[in-house]
Amino acid sequence: MSRDDRRLAPIGVFDSGLGGLTVLRAIRALLPHESFLYLGDTARVPYGNKSAATVVRYSLENAAFLMRHHVKAIVVACNTSSALALKDLTQAVAVPIIGMIAPGAARAVAMSRHQRIGIIGTTATIASRAYEHAIHALAPGTTVDSVACPLFVPLVEEGWLDTPATTMIAGQYLEALPSRDLDTLILGCTHYPLLQQVIHRILPRSLPLIDTGEAAAAELHQVLASADLLAPPATLARDRICVTDATPHLPRIAEQLFAAPLSPAEIVSVD
Amino acid sequence: MSRDDRRLAPIGVFDSGLGGLTVLRAIRALLPHESFLYLGDTARVPYGNKSAATVVRYSLENAAFLMRHHVKAIVVACNTSSALALKDLTQAVAVPIIGMIAPGAARAVAMSRHQRIGIIGTTATIASRAYEHAIHALAPGTTVDSVACPLFVPLVEEGWLDTPATTMIAGQYLEALPSRDLDTLILGCTHYPLLQQVIHRILPRSLPLIDTGEAAAAELHQVLASADLLAPPATLARDRICVTDATPHLPRIAEQLFAAPLSPAEIVSVD
Repeated sequence: MSRDDRRLAPIGVFDSGLGGLTVLRAIRALLPHESFLYLGDTARVPYGNKSAATVVRYSLENAAFLMRHHVKAIVVACNTSSALALKDLTQAVAVPIIGMIAPGAARAVAMSRHQRIGIIGTTATIASRAYEHAIHALAPGTTVDSVACPLFVPLVEEGWLDTPATTMIAGQYLEALPSRDLDTLILGCTHYPLLQQVIHRILPRSLPLIDTGEAAAAELHQVLASADLLAPPATLARDRICVTDATPHLPRIAEQLFAAPLSPAEIVSVD
Repeated sequence: MSRDDRRLAPIGVFDSGLGGLTVLRAIRALLPHESFLYLGDTARVPYGNKSAATVVRYSLENAAFLMRHHVKAIVVACNTSSALALKDLTQAVAVPIIGMIAPGAARAVAMSRHQRIGIIGTTATIASRAYEHAIHALAPGTTVDSVACPLFVPLVEEGWLDTPATTMIAGQYLEALPSRDLDTLILGCTHYPLLQQVIHRILPRSLPLIDTGEAAAAELHQVLASADLLAPPATLARDRICVTDATPHLPRIAEQLFAAPLSPAEIVSVD
C-alpha cells in the first residue's frame, strides 16, 4: 500500500462492547477527517470480570479482525484490554497501537498538584495495577488509591445513568477512596464518563475527572502526525460500526454513548 | 454403550455462568446417586441480554461439549437458553433434554389458585414470551404479567444478595407487577433464588415463588425413571465442574450458589 493509500485507511477502534464509543466520540472531535472502523464485541461483553488469559485471547481476535480490514492504527478503547493485553497486541500487529492506560496516566500526572491520584475501573483493570505502574514510572512519589466498581458497566449498559440506585451504588464504591485527599481521579473505564454527574454528586465537584478517551485521542493524533499518517484535510470521513451481536437496545445505548446519531451497526464474527 | 453403562453415565448440566449451580443443587438433593458434568460458560456470560441467534449458537456449543463427554441427559440450567434454544437443542442431540420453562410453567399453573401468574427473568427470556406460551398451553385463561430484571444477574454475580441498593433496584423492577393481584411468581432465572429474601421484602410474604430449578429436577427424575436411565442406588456419585473462564471470585460465588463445598473448577474450551 502506498503512503497516500495508508493515510486514507481507516483507524480501527475496538472495545468489549459499546463503551468505546465515548472514545470514538473524543477522537472524532479531534480528527474530523479520519475514517473509522469500530468493533464492539457485544457477544462477549463484559471483559472487566474475566481472566487475563481470556481478555488477551478476545483482544487478539478483535485486532486480527481490524487488521483484515487494513486499518492504519488501532485504538484499544477498553481499559481492561489495555491493562491486560497491550503487550500481546503490540507484538501481534504491525500498525501503531494506542491503549488507554499510558495516556490516562500521563494526563493524570500532569493534572495532579499534590501527587495524590485515585483510579476507578473494572475488577480486572484494578487488579492488574496497570495504572499504578504507569503513574509510578512517570512520577514515582505519587500516592495512588484505587477501587473496582464492577456494577458500573451493567448500570450504564441498562441506561441507568442517574437513578437513585446508581447513586447509592456509586456511594458505596467511592467511600473506599480517601476523597478529600485526592486531587485527580482517573475514570479508568470507557463507560464511566457517562456517570460523571453521579460521581460528582458524591466526590467534591472540584475534583478533576480524567476521561481516558480524551487522553488517548490526543495521543493518537500525535502518533499519526509523527508517522505522517494523518488523512489529508479534505478527506471525506466514513465510519463503519461493527458488533459481534445485535443485542437489545443497541441503537439506543450506542447513540447515548456516542452522543450523536450513528450509522446502523453491522453484525460480524471475529472468533 | 450398554444400558448398564448408560445408567452410570453422568448427567450434563449447562448454564451461561454459575447461576445453574442452584439447579444442580436442587437435582443433587433429589438424585444423590447420579454423577454430574456441570458446564458454566463463564467466558461469555451473561446470555440474558444477547440476541436469540447468539444464545442459540452458544447453547449448541455447550451441548456439543457435554455430548463429547457422553452424558445420558442434558439439563439446560439457564432460563434464557431454555426460552430461546430448546427446540434447536432437541433437534441437535440424541439424549433427553430438560429445560426450565415447561417444568416452571407447570408448577406455577399447579400452584396458582386464581390463574394470575407473574414472571421475572432476563430481558431475553421475558421478550421471548416462552413462559406465557407454556402457561397458556396448560391453562388458557390465565392472566400473565411479566417484567425483565436485567440488573439482578450482575448483582448476584457480585454477591450483592441483600444490600440496600439491591432492595432499591428490586423495588423499581417489581413495582411494574400488579403484586396484590398475583397468586404465584415464577423466578424465571437460575440466579434469582438467591434474591428470594429481597423479593419477599417487596412483594407479599404469602406470595409463592417458583424455583424453576426445583421444578426441573423433578422433571429430570421422571424422565430418567421412565427411560430406565436412573443410576443404581449404590452408585458412588462423581461431579465435575467445568467453566470456560477462571473469572475472579469464581470459587466464592460458586459455593454461594451451590450452598455447599464444590470440587475445583476445570477450565475448558467449547468454541
